[in-house]
Amino acid sequence: MTDETIQPSPKVTLMLTDAGLDSTIAVSSLDEQGHTREGHIAAERALTLYLNKRELVTLMTLGSQPEMLVLGWLRNQRLIQQMDQIEAIQVDWETSTAAVQTREPIADIEQKLSRKTVTTGCGQGTVFGDLMDDLEKIKLPETVLKQSLIYGLLKSLDQYNEIYRRAGAVHGCALCKGTEILHFVEEVGRHNAVDTIAGHMWMNHTAGHDKIFYTTGRLTSEMVIKVAQMGIPILLSRSGVTQMGLELAQKLGVTLVARAKGEHFLLYHGAEQFLFDQPPKTIRKAKKS
Amino acid sequence: MTDETIQPSPKVTLMLTDAGLDSTIAVSSLDEQGHTREGHIAAERALTLYLNKRELVTLMTLGSQPEMLVLGWLRNQRLIQQMDQIEAIQVDWETSTAAVQTREPIADIEQKLSRKTVTTGCGQGTVFGDLMDDLEKIKLPETVLKQSLIYGLLKSLDQYNEIYRRAGAVHGCALCKGTEILHFVEEVGRHNAVDTIAGHMWMNHTAGHDKIFYTTGRLTSEMVIKVAQMGIPILLSRSGVTQMGLELAQKLGVTLVARAKGEHFLLYHGAEQFLFDQPPKTIRKAKKS
Repeated sequence: MTDETIQPSPKVTLMLTDAGLDSTIAVSSLDEQGHTREGHIAAERALTLYLNKRELVTLMTLGSQPEMLVLGWLRNQRLIQQMDQIEAIQVDWETSTAAVQTREPIADIEQKLSRKTVTTGCGQGTVFGDLMDDLEKIKLPETVLKQSLIYGLLKSLDQYNEIYRRAGAVHGCALCKGTEILHFVEEVGRHNAVDTIAGHMWMNHTAGHDKIFYTTGRLTSEMVIKVAQMGIPILLSRSGVTQMGLELAQKLGVTLVARAKGEHFLLYHGAEQFLFDQPPKTIRKAKKS
Repeated sequence: MTDETIQPSPKVTLMLTDAGLDSTIAVSSLDEQGHTREGHIAAERALTLYLNKRELVTLMTLGSQPEMLVLGWLRNQRLIQQMDQIEAIQVDWETSTAAVQTREPIADIEQKLSRKTVTTGCGQGTVFGDLMDDLEKIKLPETVLKQSLIYGLLKSLDQYNEIYRRAGAVHGCALCKGTEILHFVEEVGRHNAVDTIAGHMWMNHTAGHDKIFYTTGRLTSEMVIKVAQMGIPILLSRSGVTQMGLELAQKLGVTLVARAKGEHFLLYHGAEQFLFDQPPKTIRKAKKS
């Protein structure tokens, strides 16, 4: 376990380990010819989170950025509102634990923990309870999205998805500004990936209003909620969208672009702020979405 | 809300609603040409589960088979062990609730609910706590799996995935006996799909020992745990496998076949009970798994 001190702001000193592990492991399998194939599979590790010595949850994770995952998880579960409340996050793989210590006891922790868990279609549970009320307070900026930017961004993203290419069985998420990829995170579940990016954003005081969030996964209700909580107005996915994902995007004002791959995409919400400035080179035949 | 009485066994009378809703809804989007496209997206509905008037969880679901989802969820969370404990499951979409009533109060409910939640890579939380101890008790039969059966099964499965083809954004799971598909369930998350199949199995007193479980999703730890809990010795996936999924399959004796598509597959565990009886017609070049 290595300790290092990071200064996220002049006022805050947060003790963090740097306990990231390899994301893939080498394994053998037999293919359909009965031949041995050497390949890689995605790591998956249990990490039990303790907040002030109280056990909260066990996350199953790739394990590559456990401290940022824990930080973003605490934020997205709305258990901790200000980062300067946290004194230390210490990950120890010997005991498969992440110990979070706050400077002061968390006042209303029992009430926060008694909130009911929502488990979505696919993704770790998120807090429901008063979440919907809180969502009413979110104000996302109206941001113009250009078709040319989507194409530029998809091109930038081409060089990522490294773990997926090697091992499969992971989802990728990216925090983007223009066509630049600020963070690209792969995880065994898309919600871990979102939480890890939220951890980075919190750590670095990154604002969401001028960012785009990209995911290889589906746009379900939870995905839209988390992105809105991070203050990001544009959500781009390689996959599809669900009914509640779309309804929440409409309600919260998140521009929703799904099925983004090659020159193809489907704009589900945000047409009034969308510029079709770069028609695709190849005219595609209409096909089912 | 329609009520009907189903007789799962001569001894048990379980009151169930039949509140399944449509799985997809029609929506418009704009494609990359700026043209309006009419299509379908997967439904996603919140269903809050009450056990004897106590709120337990909110599941985000497609909503097509809510009673079986609730039944399987209760079983896979190991909150209810015997189906004759349950008197009624009543789903009401007006209030987005599933009310479960048991004949007797559940004795150790507080202890059961105090178990910590595991949230995996991708999937709703499952109970961890003493789960690993319980897994030690599972004895799965040693079952021979033939390559020809995999190919026959994949052919049978070709006609399913209806919602996925129409709307995307869902995972499919199937309970299979030989090449016959007994149940095929699509859901917004693969764990809902598994739980729904578990509900059907429980309802119909279906044994797992002679079945095969197919999923379009990834084989993470939770997937292997749930299938083992259902007593099914063979797990077949269109997607990949994670490290902990593989380790648990090795420990529990689950034959694990991943990347099953067309004539291709990778056998990750269970080689000693596998018969390569039907070499693929097309000799494929070795490629990365």
